[in-house]
Amino acid sequence: MSPDVINIAKLSDGGSSEHQIQHRIDVLKKWNLLPGSKILEIGCGQGDFTLVAAYMVGDQGHVTAIDPAPLDYGAPMTLGQAQDKLKQGQIGDRMTFYQSNLQEFLDSSASEQVYDYAIFVHSVWYLPSADALQPMLAALHGRTKHLLIAEYSLDICGDIAALPHLLAAISQAEFNSRSNALDQDDNIQSIISPQIICALAQKAGWELQKEEVVESAEGQEDARWEVHRVLSEAYSLRSESTGDAARQGFANALIDAVAQSARVLGPSPKLRTLPTWLGKWV
Amino acid sequence: MSPDVINIAKLSDGGSSEHQIQHRIDVLKKWNLLPGSKILEIGCGQGDFTLVAAYMVGDQGHVTAIDPAPLDYGAPMTLGQAQDKLKQGQIGDRMTFYQSNLQEFLDSSASEQVYDYAIFVHSVWYLPSADALQPMLAALHGRTKHLLIAEYSLDICGDIAALPHLLAAISQAEFNSRSNALDQDDNIQSIISPQIICALAQKAGWELQKEEVVESAEGQEDARWEVHRVLSEAYSLRSESTGDAARQGFANALIDAVAQSARVLGPSPKLRTLPTWLGKWV
Repeated sequence: MSPDVINIAKLSDGGSSEHQIQHRIDVLKKWNLLPGSKILEIGCGQGDFTLVAAYMVGDQGHVTAIDPAPLDYGAPMTLGQAQDKLKQGQIGDRMTFYQSNLQEFLDSSASEQVYDYAIFVHSVWYLPSADALQPMLAALHGRTKHLLIAEYSLDICGDIAALPHLLAAISQAEFNSRSNALDQDDNIQSIISPQIICALAQKAGWELQKEEVVESAEGQEDARWEVHRVLSEAYSLRSESTGDAARQGFANALIDAVAQSARVLGPSPKLRTLPTWLGKWV
Repeated sequence: MSPDVINIAKLSDGGSSEHQIQHRIDVLKKWNLLPGSKILEIGCGQGDFTLVAAYMVGDQGHVTAIDPAPLDYGAPMTLGQAQDKLKQGQIGDRMTFYQSNLQEFLDSSASEQVYDYAIFVHSVWYLPSADALQPMLAALHGRTKHLLIAEYSLDICGDIAALPHLLAAISQAEFNSRSNALDQDDNIQSIISPQIICALAQKAGWELQKEEVVESAEGQEDARWEVHRVLSEAYSLRSESTGDAARQGFANALIDAVAQSARVLGPSPKLRTLPTWLGKWV
């Protein structure tokens, strides 16, 4: 384990696993942010990435982290509790959290006029659809020097141990693409492909500088979490409670496909988290 | 190539490729039908399987093949033309074709009281949903000694060259699970998993005897056909013409996933057709 992971794990004090920290370091190292950077993070949730970014930009840098979710959302710790804990930590003064959507925040006096980087890390799939991303990318144009997006790739890159995660993502996105059935507890509300993100960014006036892919960190838990969710009894019941017969049959077949793709990996399958795609725009 | 394939290819006279014939022989060999059997084939289409089954059951056997589709459906040959050609061939007297749905056929004087085998070969995914299969399995109970179903598995069995076919199947089924958007030209109307088929058969009073999996025959074209269809311009346009933003975004991401899964296989990818799952009930 690298010294950075050990240091950040101490600062996190149990908030993030070492695998999650490692993954976020891997993403940030690809982007190679300058120390002292001013970052706007969109969709920060409990602040897992916020902490890693605050560590990496050093004591002259700052991360402004926004999320529209209610502060009492989340378990066992709520969003508000998790963010407060980070603020009270050793590098807490490098982070500021706001409960806000992007447009309202940019319009407020709390926002800088121009950030060095606006960053989405695994927050794009939490949007209800690509249509929700488009106005955000447009609003950011002129308000940040660089736009950085990290989200799962829909490509297992030849590793069948990542197939259960891919199919679990498709299953959750299928459920949440039903207009009458949004479940905010799903980590995946929509699957938005790199191609679609690039098309939206271009439409919003951004110029693509670089695309990269980061393999998931060894032991990264996301695949296990999402597959476990899809294979839970509550998930099947939820699926049966909405939609017509054809939709329900389709949803059930996807659940079976997730189960089968995990089963073929053996009795205690080592599920691999999908690779993460990175885009960088100016 | 086996003598059987060569013989059937001659009888088919260009109607089926050798790969398609090989696949159907592989399926029938697993089922090990007795010569002289009386078969009821449900969803025969152009008769690709009908011919192979008629060959395999010998001159004392017979295949009664039904399909509700209009006889002028299909290109370049219509269903009616393809079936007529088989009837006029050397073993044409071993086959009888009826344009009928199952219940109407069983109620008609044309039907035997009891068949040796009722067979679905790659016709289950052409049904609009699992709900359409249930009454068929119930109607067959008592009218056939054995029920045999062959349909694609949702399991790529560790071969990533089959992933594009799996994702293309999911994409087509997603489109056709929209109540307002059935496209009868899709070979895949719904994905119905082995688990769902088994549950429906049990509910209809059938006792499962055996489950098996047959790998696709080398060169079997189905993967290429379905992937090509999903990646065609017409398919994208069709997807964009229906549904709300979230559904459309989901459909577009699935198309991108199909494209990416094929792209990683190289510039001229050898796409593998999904394995076929076989169920046998008494």
